[in-house]
Amino acid sequence: MNSKQITEQIRRKQSFLCIGLDSDIRKIPTHLLDEKYPVFEFNKQIIDATAEYCIAYKPNTAFYEACDENGFEQLAMTADYAKNNYPEIFLIADAKRGDIDNTSQMYAQAFFAQMKFDAVTLSPYMGKDTAKPFFEVNDKWVVLLALTSNNSASDFQTVKLENGKMLYEEIISQSAQWGNADNTMYVVGATKAEMLKSIREIIPNHFLLIPGIGAQGGNLADVAKYGMNESCGLIVNSSRAIIFADNTKNFAAEAGKKAREIQQEMANILQ
Amino acid sequence: MNSKQITEQIRRKQSFLCIGLDSDIRKIPTHLLDEKYPVFEFNKQIIDATAEYCIAYKPNTAFYEACDENGFEQLAMTADYAKNNYPEIFLIADAKRGDIDNTSQMYAQAFFAQMKFDAVTLSPYMGKDTAKPFFEVNDKWVVLLALTSNNSASDFQTVKLENGKMLYEEIISQSAQWGNADNTMYVVGATKAEMLKSIREIIPNHFLLIPGIGAQGGNLADVAKYGMNESCGLIVNSSRAIIFADNTKNFAAEAGKKAREIQQEMANILQ
Repeated sequence: MNSKQITEQIRRKQSFLCIGLDSDIRKIPTHLLDEKYPVFEFNKQIIDATAEYCIAYKPNTAFYEACDENGFEQLAMTADYAKNNYPEIFLIADAKRGDIDNTSQMYAQAFFAQMKFDAVTLSPYMGKDTAKPFFEVNDKWVVLLALTSNNSASDFQTVKLENGKMLYEEIISQSAQWGNADNTMYVVGATKAEMLKSIREIIPNHFLLIPGIGAQGGNLADVAKYGMNESCGLIVNSSRAIIFADNTKNFAAEAGKKAREIQQEMANILQ
Repeated sequence: MNSKQITEQIRRKQSFLCIGLDSDIRKIPTHLLDEKYPVFEFNKQIIDATAEYCIAYKPNTAFYEACDENGFEQLAMTADYAKNNYPEIFLIADAKRGDIDNTSQMYAQAFFAQMKFDAVTLSPYMGKDTAKPFFEVNDKWVVLLALTSNNSASDFQTVKLENGKMLYEEIISQSAQWGNADNTMYVVGATKAEMLKSIREIIPNHFLLIPGIGAQGGNLADVAKYGMNESCGLIVNSSRAIIFADNTKNFAAEAGKKAREIQQEMANILQ
């Protein structure tokens, strides 16, 4: 999938919402636990109820690894289901991987060949080698961590360098040369909306993936104000506020309602 | 497992060797491919042939994720097999994870509760939150990336900060306060042996996990000269040079020979 196709989907759906499928097996409605693949069943119903309001799904791999011995199978089944039924959807594996090149190649194989993801989140700490094997697959994306939304993001990400930049700015500047705006996105936490302005000076055209709306306290209007570019350039993620909006047999319909609310807020911003 | 137990094992076996189980299914001997669990069968034979010469095993999760839909099951089976048959062995999941706290908790659950690992490698980019949930499990370890052995390690890890330190030095200094020398180790690439000296000034007592001996070009004598402390304080990893020493039905015996060679080199250094 290329950036033009993502932008077209944003225009058509009037939404730049990504739904985080952090489908913790300990939090899904209990009636699903009798299923052979409870997490997949949960995701399937969430996807069916929300696909018209969002442009992307982002399962975080941790919840699948911690699920049980078939967690990864359920992750693959989720990706398959989304792609087969909603081929326009942009699928991000929130894996935050990062390793040397021959090992990164294995991760590219896992997420792009065996599973049907369009993008993988990566940690930049090990440098360019980490990202290279992912760029070798056409129409696939690397989503690099730049500025995250957790409390301890400031431990190292905003540390001042000798050249006057903050570490995350240096990472964005360098890594923007590794690929291009058609295969690289950046994670920028919504709790730092004012920093989006300076990030846009470095990378006016790249898509930004914004976590931290909702449960982590970010504000949609601020994000749009500082981060939006001419082709939108934003994918804003919400996880728990949507997928765990309700814990009864009605969970999917309630998730759909919540997604629709956010979509309508986004439609207003896009106009 | 605590640091005293690791040191005792090092003294008894006269070895500080860790064997990297980067058991790429495309590289294991072809006669194993008829097995239901070929990668596990490979690991099992490698472990039986090498356990007396090493103190730790370190499967890199990428090779299991890229294996097929039961790759993670084979990873869990490998950890089980090693722990049940060689309980003294230190088991490191080379996962290079790193996420916000509620998500890191899921990874801790996956590697420390569902699977029987003693330690997980983590990327420090997201700060203290990343490591905290792992410290909450007794006798388990965090192995933080400090200085890696890949070509692009210098993209960011050695960048100079305003305070005069290099980034990896700042990360070691800060993160050494998160836990202690009984639950934190650091990855330091063997290609940078002379840097071990300055690292030892910051953390004289912590264990260092050293990749990059063999295929990646590091030198054991240099590593020992600059990195060893009174209780050894080193775990040196070798992967491909041992596990892929031979590609026939004799692969395990050849891996054992290679591991024994390195162990004997280590025994000389330890005397």
